[in-house]
Amino acid sequence: MVDTAQSAANTTETDIGPTRASDAGTGTGLTDVSVDTGPIRVFGDPSGPAVDVDSLRRQLLGTWADVRLAAREMTAKPEFHGIPGLSMADHRTRAFEQMQRLADNGHVHRAFPAHLGGQDDHGGNIAGFEELVTADPSLQIKAGVQWGLFGAAVLHLGTAVHHDTLLPGIMSLEVPGAFAMTEIGHGSDVASIGTTATYDPQDQEFVIHTPFRAAWKEYIGNAAKDGIAAVVFAQLITGGVNHGVHAFYVPIRDASGAFLPGVGGEDDDLKGGLNGIDNGRLHFDHVRIPRTNLLNRYGDVAVDGSYTSPIASPGRRFFTMLGTLVQGRVSLDGSATQASALALTIAITYASQRRQFTAGSDTDEEVILDYQRHQRRLLPRLATTYAQTFAHDEFLVKFDAVFSGAADTDEDRQDLETLAAALKPLSTWHAIDTLQEAREACGGAGFMAANRLVGLRADLDIYATFEGDNNVLLQLVAKRLLTDYSRKFAKADAGALARYVVKQATGRAYHGSGLRRLSQAVADRGSTARSVGALRDPAVQRQLLTDRVETMIADVASVLRPATHLPKKEAADLFNSQQNALIEAARAHGELLQWEAFTRAVESTTHEGTKQVLTWLRDLFGLGLVEKRVAWYLIHGRLSAQRALAVTAYTDRLIARLRPHALDLVNAFGYTQDHLRAPIASGIERERQDEARDYYRRLRESGAEPVPEKAHKGDRKKKDHPGQ
Amino acid sequence: MVDTAQSAANTTETDIGPTRASDAGTGTGLTDVSVDTGPIRVFGDPSGPAVDVDSLRRQLLGTWADVRLAAREMTAKPEFHGIPGLSMADHRTRAFEQMQRLADNGHVHRAFPAHLGGQDDHGGNIAGFEELVTADPSLQIKAGVQWGLFGAAVLHLGTAVHHDTLLPGIMSLEVPGAFAMTEIGHGSDVASIGTTATYDPQDQEFVIHTPFRAAWKEYIGNAAKDGIAAVVFAQLITGGVNHGVHAFYVPIRDASGAFLPGVGGEDDDLKGGLNGIDNGRLHFDHVRIPRTNLLNRYGDVAVDGSYTSPIASPGRRFFTMLGTLVQGRVSLDGSATQASALALTIAITYASQRRQFTAGSDTDEEVILDYQRHQRRLLPRLATTYAQTFAHDEFLVKFDAVFSGAADTDEDRQDLETLAAALKPLSTWHAIDTLQEAREACGGAGFMAANRLVGLRADLDIYATFEGDNNVLLQLVAKRLLTDYSRKFAKADAGALARYVVKQATGRAYHGSGLRRLSQAVADRGSTARSVGALRDPAVQRQLLTDRVETMIADVASVLRPATHLPKKEAADLFNSQQNALIEAARAHGELLQWEAFTRAVESTTHEGTKQVLTWLRDLFGLGLVEKRVAWYLIHGRLSAQRALAVTAYTDRLIARLRPHALDLVNAFGYTQDHLRAPIASGIERERQDEARDYYRRLRESGAEPVPEKAHKGDRKKKDHPGQ
Repeated sequence: MVDTAQSAANTTETDIGPTRASDAGTGTGLTDVSVDTGPIRVFGDPSGPAVDVDSLRRQLLGTWADVRLAAREMTAKPEFHGIPGLSMADHRTRAFEQMQRLADNGHVHRAFPAHLGGQDDHGGNIAGFEELVTADPSLQIKAGVQWGLFGAAVLHLGTAVHHDTLLPGIMSLEVPGAFAMTEIGHGSDVASIGTTATYDPQDQEFVIHTPFRAAWKEYIGNAAKDGIAAVVFAQLITGGVNHGVHAFYVPIRDASGAFLPGVGGEDDDLKGGLNGIDNGRLHFDHVRIPRTNLLNRYGDVAVDGSYTSPIASPGRRFFTMLGTLVQGRVSLDGSATQASALALTIAITYASQRRQFTAGSDTDEEVILDYQRHQRRLLPRLATTYAQTFAHDEFLVKFDAVFSGAADTDEDRQDLETLAAALKPLSTWHAIDTLQEAREACGGAGFMAANRLVGLRADLDIYATFEGDNNVLLQLVAKRLLTDYSRKFAKADAGALARYVVKQATGRAYHGSGLRRLSQAVADRGSTARSVGALRDPAVQRQLLTDRVETMIADVASVLRPATHLPKKEAADLFNSQQNALIEAARAHGELLQWEAFTRAVESTTHEGTKQVLTWLRDLFGLGLVEKRVAWYLIHGRLSAQRALAVTAYTDRLIARLRPHALDLVNAFGYTQDHLRAPIASGIERERQDEARDYYRRLRESGAEPVPEKAHKGDRKKKDHPGQ
Repeated sequence: MVDTAQSAANTTETDIGPTRASDAGTGTGLTDVSVDTGPIRVFGDPSGPAVDVDSLRRQLLGTWADVRLAAREMTAKPEFHGIPGLSMADHRTRAFEQMQRLADNGHVHRAFPAHLGGQDDHGGNIAGFEELVTADPSLQIKAGVQWGLFGAAVLHLGTAVHHDTLLPGIMSLEVPGAFAMTEIGHGSDVASIGTTATYDPQDQEFVIHTPFRAAWKEYIGNAAKDGIAAVVFAQLITGGVNHGVHAFYVPIRDASGAFLPGVGGEDDDLKGGLNGIDNGRLHFDHVRIPRTNLLNRYGDVAVDGSYTSPIASPGRRFFTMLGTLVQGRVSLDGSATQASALALTIAITYASQRRQFTAGSDTDEEVILDYQRHQRRLLPRLATTYAQTFAHDEFLVKFDAVFSGAADTDEDRQDLETLAAALKPLSTWHAIDTLQEAREACGGAGFMAANRLVGLRADLDIYATFEGDNNVLLQLVAKRLLTDYSRKFAKADAGALARYVVKQATGRAYHGSGLRRLSQAVADRGSTARSVGALRDPAVQRQLLTDRVETMIADVASVLRPATHLPKKEAADLFNSQQNALIEAARAHGELLQWEAFTRAVESTTHEGTKQVLTWLRDLFGLGLVEKRVAWYLIHGRLSAQRALAVTAYTDRLIARLRPHALDLVNAFGYTQDHLRAPIASGIERERQDEARDYYRRLRESGAEPVPEKAHKGDRKKKDHPGQ
């Protein structure tokens, strides 16, 4: 199917004329599929760019490549895989048995102290953890509960005595535990939880108590069945003063598996996914624990009940304590990105083999990835998945620097928090969206549990609202952006600020020099080429994306300015009126971060062919973002109508160019059949299609092929009226 | 919480100034929840509009209200409900037992002939069928397989002898059957199926044969376990001529449940949802059936093998045969809309009771439906669900007219097909999207199987690709629009057409008079009021929506014009280059149909308060569509930047106005707790929140409330430095 006769030399693009034969080449995995891509024909030009799949795979593995490769060797083994259709009880049992294997082989111990058998390796620990998602998300999240939440709370909120006495049992899984933070009445608003831990100086004990039903701990992994202890978050009260939320180590079950006196709970039973995890509820009726069970790194109570903390501000103390648990968000960002990569590997492999409808031929049906719509459904999502992969590695490096202590200032921690709050929502929503699109793109086959997509989709659903509801997290990002913005202008003199406000009012505030003004945009009317030329410039893409974030934040800040002078209720109403705009600005900020990481990755790519293809993919990501929000750019005078049209035209062109490289780009994610485990991505579809095409070819050649009625009628007519 | 002191008279809107107190009133279900809506405060003004929930409920029930009410009485009963967490085997058994109840009580017999115990009532049959979705989508779709596909194929493709001999057993469920159309290698391309039915005049039999693996029948309900017969679609070959796809009645299992000789199959096993249905594969190895087992309404083979048909054109015959099965798409449109209504009832009820974060108060947390973002997530989807409900009723009336024979011309059937292909994709995608947003809007509680959303989401997933893949269906719509467009211009003289093309080229083709030109758009700069005034005019909304469909189709037609002169391959490539644009135009056409049905429903509403609220909801739907595609309107000069901003500003205002009516609007869907069966929508959340607030109120009043550390420190400081 590859037409080399009309191949054109690979040249630098200067126009997007719709009839010009283009310059994309064949990728290594493409010898057996059509590379026709519709209007702009793409030819198998051996002089065109080719992806070096091996080096790209290495680049995508990132900073902890060796850990990931070792983890993938493990996750390829059947004993770690989820089995679709297990009953909830059997799935729970299987996940717990798999947990024991992880405890035994040390895969989950990297972050723990070396003197206890760990490696003090925080980044590597998360990298290894993320890889579990291809085995079974239930196993991953249950391991996350045990070692990433329960264990990490003891590690990061406790002190030496807690480490030495509690961590060994947690690491070995001798003590399965729960992380009892969330309450049924307060999902994402942890500061408002109702559970109390009141110090009794008489007995030197804390009394853990659930004062009302909305304060039951809820959705707690390991709570329904396996957990024998829990880190319980509660309002620490001593001497009549509430010092805010602290963490306490609380035994909850005895050796027989029965709740200890005063502890109660319920099984959450069946969920939309992750049914290998025994989520449940916990409540406490004046349960007494020793004073020393307070995990006292950031706040301690002396025997006499006096409270001390290394952090004076209760607010800052709360956020510092919660900040030590940021790794949950870090790892969800990475796992969600891996799930997206897996989904696209399955869907793009299938779309390269599946044939449906004849279009340009009388006998051969088209491979469905050759349809424009199918490309539009899958390739932009592939670009986003690449952006997320590169952004995640940078994020993980930042995380490792903070937790290893290499770069651990207050500002570093705040930046890490903001990064987590910006990236986790985007990647978890992207995973849900991509798994769904991949499922639909595979039709009925995508709906079969055996082909993995529906199961992963069901499991990853909750990633959008746990470890912080995505909408709430984006508001944290927006608040940080607002704070940074107001700091910037706090330093400016009144004159500069006033000028800025005036510029805002006219809706024409331009930042930097990458863009021309609206009046100039008219000048490039008629020359799509010049428009495209500008759009391909990374500086222009950066400017478009940056400008939008800054302008949106400035606009909201200007609306919110009167809030400081309003009564509390009116101020809240004013803030609420900007909630949607703030969330959109935060999303734009996260996307800019991803674009920047992608661009750095392109810059560091050395193989020329790979670099060219990645540049197209980065452009598709960047211009895809602009295309999605092109109304904003038009309304705010950043793009002319002409250039807005060029964005879509050039996006279409990029997609057609990337089509022949699609298989290489998913193969570079590096998953084997043992990770995919989807029959439709195994080659079975190609075998079936080939068998059918062989059958019809042999039938035609045999002369026994039935004549279509239409042809037969025409034939008869001719016989009846030989003169016609 | 209802503030009547500041109530403002209900006036006709002429501006959208952000500070003016607005004019929405309390709905009947609202006495117990806050009606503050953020920046534009909405007050419980008794003179404002109020929804008459009872009459609105009657209106939403539509033309077959009595059938629906009777069906809802049945679906309220526990014996018809799905049970989350059943094993696949148990779920299959339960669904089959429920099917027997439906056969026994006659609920599924309405469409069958009166002389066989049916009612010849096609519209009522679908209305009743749709209601099953709230009981268990597995039951619904399994019933659809038996009576809506297998039975309907015998009814519509067979003739009197088939009706009298086969339908009684099908109706009573004595003969459970399969509808064996789809093949593993040809999902939506039925014309290309590989199964053959070759006539053997010697024995007067058809030989049903599966020539290769891709021609296995796949995803066939009742095939894995229950089906003892099947309607098999195959290429009818007689005398060496292929007369195209026809339907054959083929026994597949004996009394013991074993496959008959020559028949084979596999179980599809676990799916992403609908696991009460035993989907499976079937294949045939030269299976012989009597000549008379051909369902011969549209094509027959005589003893001697000669073929006759009342429809001469093989293409038209094929589409006529498939057209008799349109009811699948009709009923999915209705069921998907009901699932969306159910999801929104759950999520909006919960959001009216759930409190999270204090904003405008020191003690009381906000009801989450008072947050702007939450309103933005749910209320536009509510508007779409209303539009779909009204559109579906009109669709069903059309269906009934065709199938009752009241209006059954070729054109009627084509219109019905187009309507089905336009509406089914929109409503099934909307259901998936709405169920997901509702799930996320309910946080962790939404992920619990007990709260229904995840189960419905999993079951309805496949609605997007079965009974015609949504993307394929929309292309059918687009082709119809293109055909209509070319017919229109076939009648025009060359001069008119040429003028039209010139207008297109300048990108300024205006249709009708509802909109001003770009140059005039500048004139309303600075007056948002005038912009909003225009947007509220239904004629303007209609014009905006119609214009977009027509212009998109005209643009594509202009690009495709050269295709007739191109070689097949080049023509296919050209068509492929417009695939995405065509699908978007078809979507816009479907949305316009929904908007028109909504508008007719508003016009026919007599209760003034209800009419006012429905008008706002219709405006939210219409302007929401414009807002989503505002870039198109900007680029094509239909809206000025000023007016584009007004669309969003007015949408925000409509959402705030509708907020106090949200509960009334979902209550009008008419589902009881027996249909919802979601604990979070039962009032339990309000009880929990009230209990927590009571606890804190009593604690404050008792004087025993612990002092927050911050206040305590301030206190100590004052004591230490009494002079400050």
